[in-house]
Amino acid sequence: MTDKPTGGAGLRGQSAGTTALCTVGESGSGLAYRGYDVQDLADNARFEEVAYLLLKGKLPNQQELDDYIAKLKGLRDLPDALKTVLEQIPADAHPMDVMRTGASMLGNLETEQSFDEQQDVSDRLLAAFPSIINYWYRYSHDGERIDTVTDDESVGGHFLHLLHGKPASELHARVMNVSLILYAEHEFNASTFTARVCASTLSDMHSCVTGAVGSLRGPLHGGANEAAMAMIEDWQSPDEAEKETLGKLERKEKIMGFGHAVYRESDPRNAIIKKWSKKLSDDVGDDRLYAVSERVEEVMWREKKLFCNADFFHASAYHFMGIPTKLFTPIFVCSRVTGWCAHVFEQRENNRIIRPSADYVGPEAREWLPIEQRD
Amino acid sequence: MTDKPTGGAGLRGQSAGTTALCTVGESGSGLAYRGYDVQDLADNARFEEVAYLLLKGKLPNQQELDDYIAKLKGLRDLPDALKTVLEQIPADAHPMDVMRTGASMLGNLETEQSFDEQQDVSDRLLAAFPSIINYWYRYSHDGERIDTVTDDESVGGHFLHLLHGKPASELHARVMNVSLILYAEHEFNASTFTARVCASTLSDMHSCVTGAVGSLRGPLHGGANEAAMAMIEDWQSPDEAEKETLGKLERKEKIMGFGHAVYRESDPRNAIIKKWSKKLSDDVGDDRLYAVSERVEEVMWREKKLFCNADFFHASAYHFMGIPTKLFTPIFVCSRVTGWCAHVFEQRENNRIIRPSADYVGPEAREWLPIEQRD
Repeated sequence: MTDKPTGGAGLRGQSAGTTALCTVGESGSGLAYRGYDVQDLADNARFEEVAYLLLKGKLPNQQELDDYIAKLKGLRDLPDALKTVLEQIPADAHPMDVMRTGASMLGNLETEQSFDEQQDVSDRLLAAFPSIINYWYRYSHDGERIDTVTDDESVGGHFLHLLHGKPASELHARVMNVSLILYAEHEFNASTFTARVCASTLSDMHSCVTGAVGSLRGPLHGGANEAAMAMIEDWQSPDEAEKETLGKLERKEKIMGFGHAVYRESDPRNAIIKKWSKKLSDDVGDDRLYAVSERVEEVMWREKKLFCNADFFHASAYHFMGIPTKLFTPIFVCSRVTGWCAHVFEQRENNRIIRPSADYVGPEAREWLPIEQRD
Repeated sequence: MTDKPTGGAGLRGQSAGTTALCTVGESGSGLAYRGYDVQDLADNARFEEVAYLLLKGKLPNQQELDDYIAKLKGLRDLPDALKTVLEQIPADAHPMDVMRTGASMLGNLETEQSFDEQQDVSDRLLAAFPSIINYWYRYSHDGERIDTVTDDESVGGHFLHLLHGKPASELHARVMNVSLILYAEHEFNASTFTARVCASTLSDMHSCVTGAVGSLRGPLHGGANEAAMAMIEDWQSPDEAEKETLGKLERKEKIMGFGHAVYRESDPRNAIIKKWSKKLSDDVGDDRLYAVSERVEEVMWREKKLFCNADFFHASAYHFMGIPTKLFTPIFVCSRVTGWCAHVFEQRENNRIIRPSADYVGPEAREWLPIEQRD
């Protein structure tokens, strides 16, 4: 294949359907879920409220929120068969392969039999993902079969509790809450679009979410905060960070965590998570990683007018909470599953199978060539 | 959501990229793989030759074909961890959930570490899928842990051997061969497009194929031959079939296995598989199912000018070979995995992340509403 695409590459700017879930780069800070600015949500909401907003269509009142939190708490246990599956996955597996397999296996055990069950299946996935990744992580890395049921009120607190084997501090639970809100939804990004293409065949929810996990796994999509971490953790000082960043720019190497396909001037999520990364830095007495991150931000803006996206300060924030780098993208899943499922609901509500065309650039029609006559 | 889509529904007619793999509805019989008419391929080729054509870019010479068949034969065994996973899946699971989970689990155990491995990973999936579905089927239904290694030369023969516990007849192996050729590739259908969207994030092959399986599972996509079987198996005679078909048409019920999103006058695959279904019907001494199928075909054309697509006579053909209806769509996977993987190669070769836009139909920007003030 040496032909260049004749059109349609990436479907950039082409509408693939309608959504009521999210606007990107339009009003307020630049990101809104069902009309609510992400800044307001990050300042005021619990992630569970945002999940409710996306999945059920409105902000819950106090009773609805209490009931929803209780429901999610009741859905954290994993079936024995799923635990057995997770125990078969080696410690050096890619954690996103674990998430993908966990979602897929759950579909065998708790199959969505009709679309009437879509709310329950989505809530179950939301509640189960932190259990899936941490059960695998703790078993494969520490040899421990953890109890995945905790009494934590929040999804983020539950995640950290399972990972560290003790309840999270109030600060850490708060930062996880904000982080999960920031990653919950982002219109027709590639993983969400994967879920919608799958949904358009009227397949089940587990297939849609499993496919979306697979797409989020790609380094052009979900892996940016891990890549940012891998980069900054080596640098011992802001000055070294500046020197190395300039070197990378000179060598035209890609620097992860900067710029965005849709935002043009800034990513509204950056200022929010950056503030929390600073708080965590002060809390742990860090005198390096946050300063290094800030210097990279300065250099990138000065040299290239490139801004941090949501991922860049997530790297240091997660690191300060003791989260291993390889679990960064799985946390993204624990959040974005809300957006994915809500998009599947929409696709099902107003469906046409997603089946684009292609430009053919292959050989002309040709005669069959018997095997004896081939080179 | 009561708004109608403002555009882009299903991306029908919009190009989402280039391909050299396949033309649909253009030349010859109407379907060609890399320029070779599917009629020629079904008449002359082995499925393994077609897989080679799609995956390696040209028809193999005798030595290349021999080597390729030997390679595939050597890749039929499953890792113990995967067998353990399959043993956790209950007998009443959806067989496509089994295929999806099998592909995903294999990704944990034999992760594609670099795109240099894409050919080997694809060949492995091609060789392993029949083992995956039949290992699960025979264990969950018969309690038997089968040996998935056989000496069969062909993918189709291997499939039937594992299913029935004995080598397939020459006729059955031949029909499986044709069937696998017919289903191998079909341009940017929804499952293939799923694989390409996933590939566009530069994710791994197992993620792409796992996602594609999930999309093929949808009743609007891969399930048509199963649905056709469910319909025709109840009818005891051609006259009953005619009466019931007319009744369905009158009640405006959907009749599966007819018409096509791209073909307008006929599906070139129908005449091919129909001929083989007739041979199988004669072979087993059937005096009902083939005649019933033929009558439905006549009625649908007479009444609605609707033609059989590839799926309709596949139903009776598979049935005559003793294949349980629930395994029909997994056979589709065993074939289409060749097209999926070849499309992933293409996407990787000339990639831009697939990220369309959406038309926003949700609420305007609105103020945050404290929880005490909500209804």
